[in-house]
Amino acid sequence: MKKSPLTRRYLLTMIGKTAGAGALYSAMTSWGLARPSTFTDELDLSAAPNGSSVLVLGAGLGGMTAAYELRKAGYEVSILEYSERPGGRCYTIHSGDTFTDLSGETQHCTFAPGNYINPGPWRIPYHHYGVLHYCKKFGVKLEPFIQLNYNAYVHSPHAFDGKPQRVREVLTDVHGYTAELLAKATDQNALDEYLTPEDCEALLEQLDDWGRLTGDHKYQKSIKASEFRGFKDWPAGGLMPKPSPSEPLDFKELLHSGLWGLLLDYFNTEYQHAMFEPHGGMEQIARGFANQVGDIIDYRCQVTRIEQSDDKVTVHYIDPDKPDEVKTRSADWCVCNIPLSVLSQIQVDASPAMLQAIAAIPYGSSTKTGLEFKRRFWEQDESIFGGVTYTDMPIKVISYPAYDYFSDGPAVLLGAYTIEDAGSYTMSAMTGRERVAAAVAYGKQIHPQYEKEFISGVSWSWHRCPWTLGCYGLWTDELREAHYDTLCSIDHRLVLTGEHCSYIPAWMEGAILSGMDATKRLHEKATAMKRERGDHE
Amino acid sequence: MKKSPLTRRYLLTMIGKTAGAGALYSAMTSWGLARPSTFTDELDLSAAPNGSSVLVLGAGLGGMTAAYELRKAGYEVSILEYSERPGGRCYTIHSGDTFTDLSGETQHCTFAPGNYINPGPWRIPYHHYGVLHYCKKFGVKLEPFIQLNYNAYVHSPHAFDGKPQRVREVLTDVHGYTAELLAKATDQNALDEYLTPEDCEALLEQLDDWGRLTGDHKYQKSIKASEFRGFKDWPAGGLMPKPSPSEPLDFKELLHSGLWGLLLDYFNTEYQHAMFEPHGGMEQIARGFANQVGDIIDYRCQVTRIEQSDDKVTVHYIDPDKPDEVKTRSADWCVCNIPLSVLSQIQVDASPAMLQAIAAIPYGSSTKTGLEFKRRFWEQDESIFGGVTYTDMPIKVISYPAYDYFSDGPAVLLGAYTIEDAGSYTMSAMTGRERVAAAVAYGKQIHPQYEKEFISGVSWSWHRCPWTLGCYGLWTDELREAHYDTLCSIDHRLVLTGEHCSYIPAWMEGAILSGMDATKRLHEKATAMKRERGDHE
Ligand SMILES: Cc1cc2nc3c(=O)[nH]c(=O)nc-3n(C[C@H](O)[C@H](O)[C@H](O)COP(=O)(O)OP(=O)(O)OC[C@H]3O[C@@H](n4cnc5c(N)ncnc54)[C@H](O)[C@@H]3O)c2cc1C
Ligand SMILES: Cc1cc2nc3c(=O)[nH]c(=O)nc-3n(C[C@H](O)[C@H](O)[C@H](O)COP(=O)(O)OP(=O)(O)OC[C@H]3O[C@@H](n4cnc5c(N)ncnc54)[C@H](O)[C@@H]3O)c2cc1C
Repeated sequence: MKKSPLTRRYLLTMIGKTAGAGALYSAMTSWGLARPSTFTDELDLSAAPNGSSVLVLGAGLGGMTAAYELRKAGYEVSILEYSERPGGRCYTIHSGDTFTDLSGETQHCTFAPGNYINPGPWRIPYHHYGVLHYCKKFGVKLEPFIQLNYNAYVHSPHAFDGKPQRVREVLTDVHGYTAELLAKATDQNALDEYLTPEDCEALLEQLDDWGRLTGDHKYQKSIKASEFRGFKDWPAGGLMPKPSPSEPLDFKELLHSGLWGLLLDYFNTEYQHAMFEPHGGMEQIARGFANQVGDIIDYRCQVTRIEQSDDKVTVHYIDPDKPDEVKTRSADWCVCNIPLSVLSQIQVDASPAMLQAIAAIPYGSSTKTGLEFKRRFWEQDESIFGGVTYTDMPIKVISYPAYDYFSDGPAVLLGAYTIEDAGSYTMSAMTGRERVAAAVAYGKQIHPQYEKEFISGVSWSWHRCPWTLGCYGLWTDELREAHYDTLCSIDHRLVLTGEHCSYIPAWMEGAILSGMDATKRLHEKATAMKRERGDHE
Repeated sequence: MKKSPLTRRYLLTMIGKTAGAGALYSAMTSWGLARPSTFTDELDLSAAPNGSSVLVLGAGLGGMTAAYELRKAGYEVSILEYSERPGGRCYTIHSGDTFTDLSGETQHCTFAPGNYINPGPWRIPYHHYGVLHYCKKFGVKLEPFIQLNYNAYVHSPHAFDGKPQRVREVLTDVHGYTAELLAKATDQNALDEYLTPEDCEALLEQLDDWGRLTGDHKYQKSIKASEFRGFKDWPAGGLMPKPSPSEPLDFKELLHSGLWGLLLDYFNTEYQHAMFEPHGGMEQIARGFANQVGDIIDYRCQVTRIEQSDDKVTVHYIDPDKPDEVKTRSADWCVCNIPLSVLSQIQVDASPAMLQAIAAIPYGSSTKTGLEFKRRFWEQDESIFGGVTYTDMPIKVISYPAYDYFSDGPAVLLGAYTIEDAGSYTMSAMTGRERVAAAVAYGKQIHPQYEKEFISGVSWSWHRCPWTLGCYGLWTDELREAHYDTLCSIDHRLVLTGEHCSYIPAWMEGAILSGMDATKRLHEKATAMKRERGDHE
């Protein structure tokens, strides 16, 4: 690699080189450094056909996005919503809240005032432009969410005698041992088919740095490795104990521990820094939208039938508390944001292909359990500020609050987050109280302080929620192939929105982008039809 | 690996198992999950010998820590400080500030009101317990600092045609190609000496996941790899374009690019999440300390000589603006916080070994350049929210503000941060204005928007600062061996504090822990002497 010449003259010449600047400026576009997203710009629709009306079913983010944009374009919009609040899955359980699930179990959240847990969405990646766009537009203040905390743990009760291992230790050891093995193979010329001697030299040099290898390319106890994995005695001041290296984990034990695999999520674009969350709970986003469209939402309106005729859509709905009084409402167009798990049980007038698509997608299971403790022992005793601990126990996740760091008094962590695995169904089969107890029982294997510090908990199961009957649409490649385009297309006067109509399932971005896309296409169709009709008149 | 049995009965049994809980609780201590630091607890000294006095030289964090703790213990303490403000290197240049360096160049910071740059310390790791302890104690509010942002860049003008590469792409490709090579070697039985067939199977399985390998253990363009490195077309909603995979970088080009090495700092304990910074600039920490000891600091007092006699220390000092008026002040004890670069030029009464130690440690060079732009183009155009971009150009670092995300209006980024390398000396040799121009000229190779959006900049060189004459003490293993213990020991009535008296050079934690340690030992000596003398009377 050539090095930059570092003379002063070189620097000063550099500064003078303004001639090339224009070229540089335009380079960015060709480099593709612009936003890594399909989201390009905000919708700017206008000129809705005179007097056209749209009925939106469901005040989730997918529905409210469509309602907001269509109203802005000039449509007459109203929203029918099953529950008594906007946002659907974008929800926060606050101190003082009470909720009852499908089984009839009522939980009361007795957290200290101000404390809360997000039973659904809780983190926003930097590349979810739709979400970030509307947060900014609607004044929803975001703060950093921390996913990767090197000082959090990965854990298995079957590995390392059940002792939780710091992420920094496991990650450094994975890098170290794989680098050592690769260096051995390189040294033994096993890779000569692929690498020139020059390549081998460069590779060995970088493996030494990357893997913190010492001596003859060995990953072993050393200050160099400790700089990455952490020390036994950490560097300190004055005549305090001198720094001493920590002992790497045993390679074979690590290899068979399952802990390596628990690191994966830290590197997935969905969980990569920077991430965000709204200050005060995810529901802030729902409120941001409701500030715009709240005036056109009718709550406690459970849709029971969607009729389509030539020139309009008529929707039947009831108040879930008075199931016998069926009401109807009609409009020119209908945007349906109802999860497929629920929609598939409603009579809908649509093409056979659309009805098949609606019926085809199974829904995932998920539970989340929030636990309140007397103090932030994870910060105070273990120096864990935000971030996620992964375990292969059924609780899967412990996530530490990424807000109000260093504060005293009771605090809430996410004590269990099961999603689409065996543990998730087992957890869903339990009552909320049992799930809280299970989260504590498992969690204390990682944080023994649970025993003494636990105050109370609440637990939410998405399968026990009447307006979702599950967590999210479980697409497979085969299902996409067979049904996705149909599901997203406009069926006469009906179009669907929601995370299920996206390639980003179980993310708010999916719901919002689908809402934007459906809106745009509906507007195109409505204006095209108007034009045609105008031409005929 | 055994799997947890996931029956409901198992879960309920688990919950009942409170018998073992006590054992679990005590397990934490033996597991060593307590804080990874030598810092254990706050100092709680008391009963200073009646009427004992201490003179502290320098109001850096090392000096103020000692002053605070000694006064609390009952000593009569006063501080002489060269400059006109507390904190030393812990400093923030705010909008409106003016400063003049040793060369006589005056810079005026014309940033928009509220904007600032930290010319010295700017980030605090989670394991710097001393810093975090005093921040909490003195009410200094901290917010997350972001080091690793997967969407920031690593860059070399000599690699990939000078196109900056996203961290997520390079990191995923490094994992991918090393996994592929290691899988090849494993498949060819090159590692059979070290791995059993069972090990090989487990390794291959995990390499597939970790390296995002597809097909026959190949790292190649795929959705699986794109989930980590990012997509060409990102997953979206409705009938927007379908997700399409991105193309990995060429392995050989990557291997020889130098970019792999630029990833290293993201994994070093010194820069691992969680990190923090004070809201409003690092100087908030200096202010926190000054709220406690500000009343005993005399500013514009440049120490020029330290005399020791049997029973006291006498310090000569001047007002730098009136060098002819030499004043003196005496005390029983002296805590000297003056950087060795300056102290080595002052006449000090101390043992020959101590004087040798003081003279032996060279000081590193460092410059930092803050640039203000009309808007947060890095957020708005490139979706970079906080974090650090590394380049092998002389500017080395571009760091994006980790506060006030999404805000409009002018914002400041760290446009160059050179420390102890060739670039650093070259940059130090330039005037501040030249350094600002250089930072812009280099930086626009990464962010072409510089050209259009740049407003103004300020640059600080630590070699041009009269009260440090350098950046930090450059220890080597040999120097530590020869001088460290001497430098930290109490020399008659004099003890040194500061980052140079620590194993954490160039970190505030080093200064603070050294201050705590020196204080403790001084107090021990003072009380022991008092006791002895008492015994004699
Ligand atoms: C456990 C969990 C974790 C998640 N984590 C994240 C995360 O970290 N980040 C992220 O971005 N996303 C996350 N998500 C996904 C996110 O919550 C969803 O993708 C998004 O909120 C879905 O919005 P939607 O508009 O598609 O549906 P919903 O929000 O479900 O809206 C549908 C609406 O329709 C209403 N409705 C239902 N039936 C009827 C009816 N018969 N009549 C009238 N109205 C009806 C419902 O009450 C609801 O208001 C998570 C989801 C879950 C469940
Ligand atoms: C560029 C740079 C980046 C850094 N980044 C970080 C970081 O991100 N995080 C972190 O924790 N740390 C960082 N540090 C290190 C941190 O700033 C220092 O370790 C710490 O502030 C040093 O404190 P101190 O008390 O040892 O010395 P100082 O802060 O230098 O205090 C010494 C004091 O002595 C005074 N003095 C000097 N001469 C005399 C004299 N003759 N008479 C009287 N008084 C005198 C000075 O004015 C000064 O106030 C950084 C430092 C630099 C320079």
